Amino acid sequence: MIHERAGRGGAAHLPGKDAQAGGPRVVALGGGHGLYASLSALRMVTGRLTAVVTVADDGGSSGRLRRELGVLPPGDLRMALAALCDDDEWGITWSEVVQHRFRSEGELHGHAVGNLLIVALWELLGDAVAGLDWVGRLLGAHGRVLPMASVPLDIVAEVELDGVVSTVRGQVACALTPGRVLSVSLVPEDPPARPEAVAAVRDADWVVFGPGSWFTSVLPHLKVPELARALHGTKARRLVTLNLAPQPGETDDFSPQQHLDVLRQHAPDLSMDVVLADTQVVDDHDALEKAAAALGARLVIADVAASDGSPRHDPRRLASVLDEIFLQKR
Amino acid sequence: MIHERAGRGGAAHLPGKDAQAGGPRVVALGGGHGLYASLSALRMVTGRLTAVVTVADDGGSSGRLRRELGVLPPGDLRMALAALCDDDEWGITWSEVVQHRFRSEGELHGHAVGNLLIVALWELLGDAVAGLDWVGRLLGAHGRVLPMASVPLDIVAEVELDGVVSTVRGQVACALTPGRVLSVSLVPEDPPARPEAVAAVRDADWVVFGPGSWFTSVLPHLKVPELARALHGTKARRLVTLNLAPQPGETDDFSPQQHLDVLRQHAPDLSMDVVLADTQVVDDHDALEKAAAALGARLVIADVAASDGSPRHDPRRLASVLDEIFLQKR
Repeated sequence: MIHERAGRGGAAHLPGKDAQAGGPRVVALGGGHGLYASLSALRMVTGRLTAVVTVADDGGSSGRLRRELGVLPPGDLRMALAALCDDDEWGITWSEVVQHRFRSEGELHGHAVGNLLIVALWELLGDAVAGLDWVGRLLGAHGRVLPMASVPLDIVAEVELDGVVSTVRGQVACALTPGRVLSVSLVPEDPPARPEAVAAVRDADWVVFGPGSWFTSVLPHLKVPELARALHGTKARRLVTLNLAPQPGETDDFSPQQHLDVLRQHAPDLSMDVVLADTQVVDDHDALEKAAAALGARLVIADVAASDGSPRHDPRRLASVLDEIFLQKR
Repeated sequence: MIHERAGRGGAAHLPGKDAQAGGPRVVALGGGHGLYASLSALRMVTGRLTAVVTVADDGGSSGRLRRELGVLPPGDLRMALAALCDDDEWGITWSEVVQHRFRSEGELHGHAVGNLLIVALWELLGDAVAGLDWVGRLLGAHGRVLPMASVPLDIVAEVELDGVVSTVRGQVACALTPGRVLSVSLVPEDPPARPEAVAAVRDADWVVFGPGSWFTSVLPHLKVPELARALHGTKARRLVTLNLAPQPGETDDFSPQQHLDVLRQHAPDLSMDVVLADTQVVDDHDALEKAAAALGARLVIADVAASDGSPRHDPRRLASVLDEIFLQKR
């Protein structure tokens, strides 16, 4: 059944609603559910929103399409597009359609409809960004969705278990391998960044990292050299939204401050302007403030989690706080 | 590549263009490429257009979806929706997208994107007509597309070869079995018609049969009892558009008049008002006029074929002639 999506509602009461046509130029980095949450909030705050999305998924529908058709894994791009759909009947329907997965005993089982639509446009137009722009138009998406690289990537993780460090390749393997992820890199090591993504970062007013799977969705952008250079060189202010819960298999026992430490290890010269943490995840305020300061950032603590206690951001709360931060009111 | 579709062009010069918002209520019956041709013309003539489409396909992408997901075969419905797409960039892109087929060595090979989109809406909404109406809205289709029955059907054909009559079940088998098709029936024998299709026929000003695969796309509508009753009882005028070339495997050696004879055999009490034939297919004018008269119809002969000599209708020529017939100018 088509129904109103949880946590999505009218944006009429939001401070930034009037500025939707304009607003700051915001680039949101990430993938998966974390980026979905970030975009669901940011599209209420600005009309100039670009998502720069990881293309390293090798599991599920995306992995199968990548192997069968030799395309970029479309799943994280699809979720980003779904997050940018409107709250009216058109947008809600489209969001439900693109997220819909076939369930059967057969060959279509598990494929998400939006993945197939994106790949069809890629095949018709022969260009990943042109195809995504068209899908965005068809859906009436509030913002642009770009892949971070022009080629499919594999994530390689260094994983430590009982004092032994091993190397794991592939996003699925990284998530499933027991042990503690120490660092990630990409194969190929120097993938071509999408020029549109690099330009969006350079031209942004704000760049938003996270929330999301830290090693497989948030950090990979820093491992695409051209994109990393843009992220370091941009005059945009940089904000990190911390996760609400550890990511099973990736960051099981990580404190919020450890997330920031890992970010700093992967990009030692990258300074941040704001670290945004939900009130409930702060277990050691001083340690978190110190970790933020080590990145050059001030710490903003606010209620941005859903009120039902589930570990997800409430789009309207997150939007409200981000809007205040962007307007320097917080 | 997305490009302008062959035989589609601006409708600005057509007589009926100004009447697009209104126009006669026209119901077009059929399936496949024949219905596509009919709708491509009719959408230029009237803004009140409904396609009532066969749901008996068991081959290709449709057959696989029917078997895997237990749904109506969507292929003929998809083609009808593609035919109703606009001639602007939006409509051309959508038409290309829904008609696009994946090509691979894997599980998606041969699936048409529009089939998957239609089935997704069916699964989301739980109703075939509601799903098709939504897909039509998404595409901006100029008209409504309805299945003729509420359940998937099988076509059963009596086929004669060397004096021996055998029974063949399934649309693919009918097309592939050597011999001459004598008649068709449906399994189940008394399928539930879609009420919306019955109502559209009852409320129509014109009902258009053909062109198309005679036994598997044009005649099946007469074998759905409720729909057949509506086709007999409607006050609408009835028009038959004859094919431009015999259908391989079905009507290899059929003359235009034999097509009309077969129609009369399948629905002896159904009268027609107009039989439309292309100038070039008329091999025996008197015989064709006689066959038309036996149906109660007057014969209109006009240049409605494509000028490149291919056996397909030119949408603008066909639209122009249909418009004159509807306005009683021809």
